[in-house]
Amino acid sequence: MATVVTDSADTQEGPRAEGAPSPTLAERYRAVRAHSERLCETLETEDYVVSSMPDVSPTKWHLAHTSWFFETFVLAPNDPFYKPLDPKYAFLFNSYYVQAGERHCRAQRGLVTRPTVQEVFAYRRYVDDHMLSLLDRLEHTDVVTLGLHHEQQHQELMLTDIKHVFWMNPMRPAYLKNSGHGISDMGNGSSPDSPVPPISHLPSPMSAVPEGVYQIGHTDPSFAFDNETPAHRVFIEPFSIARDLVSNREYLAFVDDHGYHRPELWLAAGWALVREQKREAPLYWERTPDGWTEFTLEGTRPLDLDAPVCHVSYFEADAFARWAGKRLPTEAEWEVAARTVPDLARLYGDRWQWTQSAYVAYPGYKPAAGAIGEYNGKWMSDQWVLRGSSLATPPGHSRVTYRNFFPSDTRWQYSGIRLASS
Amino acid sequence: MATVVTDSADTQEGPRAEGAPSPTLAERYRAVRAHSERLCETLETEDYVVSSMPDVSPTKWHLAHTSWFFETFVLAPNDPFYKPLDPKYAFLFNSYYVQAGERHCRAQRGLVTRPTVQEVFAYRRYVDDHMLSLLDRLEHTDVVTLGLHHEQQHQELMLTDIKHVFWMNPMRPAYLKNSGHGISDMGNGSSPDSPVPPISHLPSPMSAVPEGVYQIGHTDPSFAFDNETPAHRVFIEPFSIARDLVSNREYLAFVDDHGYHRPELWLAAGWALVREQKREAPLYWERTPDGWTEFTLEGTRPLDLDAPVCHVSYFEADAFARWAGKRLPTEAEWEVAARTVPDLARLYGDRWQWTQSAYVAYPGYKPAAGAIGEYNGKWMSDQWVLRGSSLATPPGHSRVTYRNFFPSDTRWQYSGIRLASS
Amino acid sequence: MATVVTDSADTQEGPRAEGAPSPTLAERYRAVRAHSERLCETLETEDYVVSSMPDVSPTKWHLAHTSWFFETFVLAPNDPFYKPLDPKYAFLFNSYYVQAGERHCRAQRGLVTRPTVQEVFAYRRYVDDHMLSLLDRLEHTDVVTLGLHHEQQHQELMLTDIKHVFWMNPMRPAYLKNSGHGISDMGNGSSPDSPVPPISHLPSPMSAVPEGVYQIGHTDPSFAFDNETPAHRVFIEPFSIARDLVSNREYLAFVDDHGYHRPELWLAAGWALVREQKREAPLYWERTPDGWTEFTLEGTRPLDLDAPVCHVSYFEADAFARWAGKRLPTEAEWEVAARTVPDLARLYGDRWQWTQSAYVAYPGYKPAAGAIGEYNGKWMSDQWVLRGSSLATPPGHSRVTYRNFFPSDTRWQYSGIRLASS
Amino acid sequence: MATVVTDSADTQEGPRAEGAPSPTLAERYRAVRAHSERLCETLETEDYVVSSMPDVSPTKWHLAHTSWFFETFVLAPNDPFYKPLDPKYAFLFNSYYVQAGERHCRAQRGLVTRPTVQEVFAYRRYVDDHMLSLLDRLEHTDVVTLGLHHEQQHQELMLTDIKHVFWMNPMRPAYLKNSGHGISDMGNGSSPDSPVPPISHLPSPMSAVPEGVYQIGHTDPSFAFDNETPAHRVFIEPFSIARDLVSNREYLAFVDDHGYHRPELWLAAGWALVREQKREAPLYWERTPDGWTEFTLEGTRPLDLDAPVCHVSYFEADAFARWAGKRLPTEAEWEVAARTVPDLARLYGDRWQWTQSAYVAYPGYKPAAGAIGEYNGKWMSDQWVLRGSSLATPPGHSRVTYRNFFPSDTRWQYSGIRLASS
Repeated sequence: MATVVTDSADTQEGPRAEGAPSPTLAERYRAVRAHSERLCETLETEDYVVSSMPDVSPTKWHLAHTSWFFETFVLAPNDPFYKPLDPKYAFLFNSYYVQAGERHCRAQRGLVTRPTVQEVFAYRRYVDDHMLSLLDRLEHTDVVTLGLHHEQQHQELMLTDIKHVFWMNPMRPAYLKNSGHGISDMGNGSSPDSPVPPISHLPSPMSAVPEGVYQIGHTDPSFAFDNETPAHRVFIEPFSIARDLVSNREYLAFVDDHGYHRPELWLAAGWALVREQKREAPLYWERTPDGWTEFTLEGTRPLDLDAPVCHVSYFEADAFARWAGKRLPTEAEWEVAARTVPDLARLYGDRWQWTQSAYVAYPGYKPAAGAIGEYNGKWMSDQWVLRGSSLATPPGHSRVTYRNFFPSDTRWQYSGIRLASS
Repeated sequence: MATVVTDSADTQEGPRAEGAPSPTLAERYRAVRAHSERLCETLETEDYVVSSMPDVSPTKWHLAHTSWFFETFVLAPNDPFYKPLDPKYAFLFNSYYVQAGERHCRAQRGLVTRPTVQEVFAYRRYVDDHMLSLLDRLEHTDVVTLGLHHEQQHQELMLTDIKHVFWMNPMRPAYLKNSGHGISDMGNGSSPDSPVPPISHLPSPMSAVPEGVYQIGHTDPSFAFDNETPAHRVFIEPFSIARDLVSNREYLAFVDDHGYHRPELWLAAGWALVREQKREAPLYWERTPDGWTEFTLEGTRPLDLDAPVCHVSYFEADAFARWAGKRLPTEAEWEVAARTVPDLARLYGDRWQWTQSAYVAYPGYKPAAGAIGEYNGKWMSDQWVLRGSSLATPPGHSRVTYRNFFPSDTRWQYSGIRLASS
Repeated sequence: MATVVTDSADTQEGPRAEGAPSPTLAERYRAVRAHSERLCETLETEDYVVSSMPDVSPTKWHLAHTSWFFETFVLAPNDPFYKPLDPKYAFLFNSYYVQAGERHCRAQRGLVTRPTVQEVFAYRRYVDDHMLSLLDRLEHTDVVTLGLHHEQQHQELMLTDIKHVFWMNPMRPAYLKNSGHGISDMGNGSSPDSPVPPISHLPSPMSAVPEGVYQIGHTDPSFAFDNETPAHRVFIEPFSIARDLVSNREYLAFVDDHGYHRPELWLAAGWALVREQKREAPLYWERTPDGWTEFTLEGTRPLDLDAPVCHVSYFEADAFARWAGKRLPTEAEWEVAARTVPDLARLYGDRWQWTQSAYVAYPGYKPAAGAIGEYNGKWMSDQWVLRGSSLATPPGHSRVTYRNFFPSDTRWQYSGIRLASS
Repeated sequence: MATVVTDSADTQEGPRAEGAPSPTLAERYRAVRAHSERLCETLETEDYVVSSMPDVSPTKWHLAHTSWFFETFVLAPNDPFYKPLDPKYAFLFNSYYVQAGERHCRAQRGLVTRPTVQEVFAYRRYVDDHMLSLLDRLEHTDVVTLGLHHEQQHQELMLTDIKHVFWMNPMRPAYLKNSGHGISDMGNGSSPDSPVPPISHLPSPMSAVPEGVYQIGHTDPSFAFDNETPAHRVFIEPFSIARDLVSNREYLAFVDDHGYHRPELWLAAGWALVREQKREAPLYWERTPDGWTEFTLEGTRPLDLDAPVCHVSYFEADAFARWAGKRLPTEAEWEVAARTVPDLARLYGDRWQWTQSAYVAYPGYKPAAGAIGEYNGKWMSDQWVLRGSSLATPPGHSRVTYRNFFPSDTRWQYSGIRLASS
């Protein structure tokens, strides 16, 4: 039995251009804030207002809440002369930070027509002006960096949320008229629903990883969320992991093999949902006389069989794996494989990958003090960890230790499947 | 015992200027359609989109649905060359006419961001153009007239609905900046929430009506909904009816006398709601350190004690009447009193008046054939009749035989209380 | 137009044997109390405990609650030495009398295993002993009489409730092993589900009733509930009423004519229920390869086509009437016809008959003072009046002015259809 | 860093008397079956019937379902002449084995009055007779052993369920009249709610466990559920674990320190529940003018401050741990400590101990083939592992590898808290 402690730096999904100077904090602030607004370029005013299900927030709310974050955690504590643009915004745009004061009921976010979209953009300007004049003078900039990563998380949600809003509309509007639209240069080079390189080898070859004690978790001085720490050792029994994601073609074979009608393939809670909601396929798939289609940010189109399957829940990922005679990896297996196996495709920037690890604290985990400590820690029940990142994840927001997390039945994220086996 | 058959014409709430020529149907069409749009003048685009509770429809939907009505029941059957602007609109904007085809789920009306507001106005233009070129050639215009009265009903709903939308917003926006705004000339001379002449005599004097056989229901050739017919005879035991409505001052005395905490005053179903929802006052009232306020289309303001109480449910109207040692009138009593008692104030144009008559068919009632027959008849269960009209009712839409109807717990309409006794 | 005031005594469903002396109050008390217990003779201990839906109370609860009524409204106010057997029973067995103190949540009635059945019978003995020794000394016996009629209402509920409990059990137990069982002599000569005389003329002939002013409501000094008073005059337009009830054969024709799939036949709220619950027939009907069956207190058996249809809701009665080109009678029409038309069959003792009259107060209605006043008055919203009585109604509990009432979707009562037309 | 592989046998909670011969399978069968019935000795017939919440099954159902298990998985496959006593029982008493056929809706278990209690006992006799005559001839007895462990699990549920049934009854009946009752010898020497040795050292001293690779999971040939296998290695960072459980006295200090009103102590989902349900203490605690009481199987009594806290949810255990500056152990930590730390008190037979490990498959886990495979595997989402055993656990049913599991908000089990720290 080998005892291996990996000490490589946390792998970033893309290399930075050699020799390019690091951007300043103000440059990064401007870039991230601008990216949020660029994502809205194709929206109509009406699109900003609604919430199509409890998980989905209005675009307008995302734009305001990310500004409220800077206002509450940077401007208010650090700028003694700062006056909020509107004192009611603190109530309206606080998401879930109980220690930061009373907040508006989440279920009613989609009912709030005022402030208008224009007023929300003015709020962003107001916060930006104050932030940019404060940044130089600021001694501790950690919370600013956190706020930028926070905004990036909301950038991904803005895309998944508007996709769901459009899906719930019988008019089936398109967010992007076609892939040639300017927005397709969304910062990571493409729209979340633009074509991806085909998955060619079916089933994916598996790579073996030897047993051993490995270290996982964040170590280097770069930014990470508190839930990625502390780095710690895990023992991993020998396992294999798929080099590529599961494709729509493979998932369709599961569907065609009556996968949604065979209880023995499903967790009990998943099976109950499948029956109750008469599910037959991933979210956004529709069976038509001409074959399966999928709804995308570019409208409805024929299902791309060679693309990785997307918008599946944990229940679906788990059932598919059982059908395929495999299982989902644990998050430790995923991280070790990502660090040590050279030929793994689509780790980042394609589909979030469900793991069979529940989202709990790493040994020795300590959340930050105060309201900021509510960021990650209080969600550690009844969720699963997803690893990697997706086509909707903004650039610079992926890393090998990143722990995304969602409940078992979540489907509106860009979530897919990478298989493993013991 | 006197046997009395009233044969006066149905009383209209206001006299028409002597000698003025009747407007043509096209003129009436233009006027009613324009009025709907005038009601929207102060709205922001965002305000058109949302639904704040199941009873409330988005403004955008009201504007489109009233157009769909003309499209479906006038243009499609009468204009062989008519092509819908968008075939999906038939699905989106059908309210409840099962026989007119599949329709969008009511609960999801507030999630539909497209068509945009601008597109809905374009839809109105499109329908108007076709209607106006068809009107001259049209042999049977009854459905056009029905469509105009239908649109007037939605005009009232547009006001009550947007009021509720704004109420659910912690920003508490105002529909009208102040009473001086142009919209205050809303067609009936004032905004629904502008000041009304004070109620001075407390309690209101009662007028006696003798027993007898009276005729109620619509008879003359002017327009009426099918549920106002056929006219028929009723025997009414002697009763008295209040000359004026119940004021906020009187209702506040009921509140202060622990009215919302005394089960013996309430119907069982009303008491259950009061307890479950911890109600203490009518909708839109708020208790503040400086006294009671009411939320209005012009914003929040101190409660006007001399105004008629408003936004009370049947349960509240009934409980108040019991506390006052009185009861609510039946709809027959109301109509007979309105026809025969000269000094009754505020019959029309102020508050809808709850009656203790369930909304059921008049003897011999026959709904129209086809989908139009669903207009009134299929709602005849578990609702109460309200009589008169309100400040939100558009001009020309009140008459002595009018039967409005809502369930027991409805509060978002401009509903008030007129007392009676045996 | 004739003005007619009926002054006949309230029609009882059956004549009393000539010359028989009136039973004393104590005799009546003993007889009614004994009848409740006779209804339980075939039950197992387990059967007394459960509630199969919110409308249904456990048999054990009925037996105890009717005793609580005497304890609370007779013994406690009149016997200064009376001590309750167990002070907690006042909490457990109060149904809905808010003014009589706190009470156990209705939804949890079926969870209470103690007191046991035996203890409940002991409670009955205890109350009976005290009642019988008090009765002689009691000056005002009205509440005792009310308590006996109250217990008779619960006797009907005991039968309808246990039928539903057995229906919800996949074992489908029978309350009566066969019609020859002793219990078939249930006091009115037969079990509620024993065969009835066949309906022969299809469709039923109609009898005409002339227009006029009629008096309805209770007048003579015999017992009636407060909601049957005061007697008052109504004008009735000419109408016809069916001489017999609607049969299963006729109702089956409606089913076979796709009655449950034609929205134009249904009230909107009824149609929503039919679709949501996929209803295809009355309660207790089941479609089998060998034809329709009905579940009865004697078990499952083939549908008796010549019997009156039973266990239909107001929605179903109303839809059937519309399909048949008729309507339901109002309660005033029913009462006038019952008083004046000689050849009407099955007015009493077969099926309760839905009327299209909402359950509201008669003009001048005054409920009793105190908690007893909650008996009828507070239920006057969102219910319909049913007239007549059923096979489950105990003997001596039917009269021409009786107003039974249930909500639109009630089906577990023995409710049927008598048609009318204008 | 030490690499440690424990190879001790799975620790049983109590030693077997030296030299006593192992009981035969038939003897064990008789003993386990008899124990279930002994648990019912103090019940009234009515107590067997009801279900007080979705988690709770009627006692009658437990008695029948455990028999159904033997019928379905032993008698039917192995005895070609076996005929079920009643074919409908297969439908009524299947819990969740989808592959074993259709089953009765769990939510309606508490509505089924027949078969009666007596009939259920007859069913047990019938199954027992067939089992005992089959046992000698049976080649593979693994499923019999599984069935006995299965019945033992239901024995624990019978106690927790009847406790909840009695709690929901305002009469607050006692299962045991007093500790002197014969049943107090419930097989493990005492009733679940009889006094336990006091917790004396507050706070409990902690024992340190060194880091290392440890083996957890079941290895020896004795019985274990499939979810305890395969044994595998884990790396554990150094940690400390409390030698004793948390006492009511300590938990009360948390309550008195406003523990239920401080959001920063709670997981988000737990805090939402605490607020929504206005929780202030563990299940079965009640605040009275004379201090806190707890409801037990022996009735209501003053809270025993020196006893281990009981009936807390994961949310409460986790919040308490945070308040105490500690955390819950992982299941691997618990098992390693139980195997290696000599002075840990109350590992078994007192309170189940929440761990912060989600219930997921061990690496290489394989459920059994067929319906039996549904026993454990399909529940592996949204539950936490509890370790040890409780006062309600029957004798011979505890071991160091045992993995009990329940959702985050479960409180009706005998669940307590053992603290750990990194």
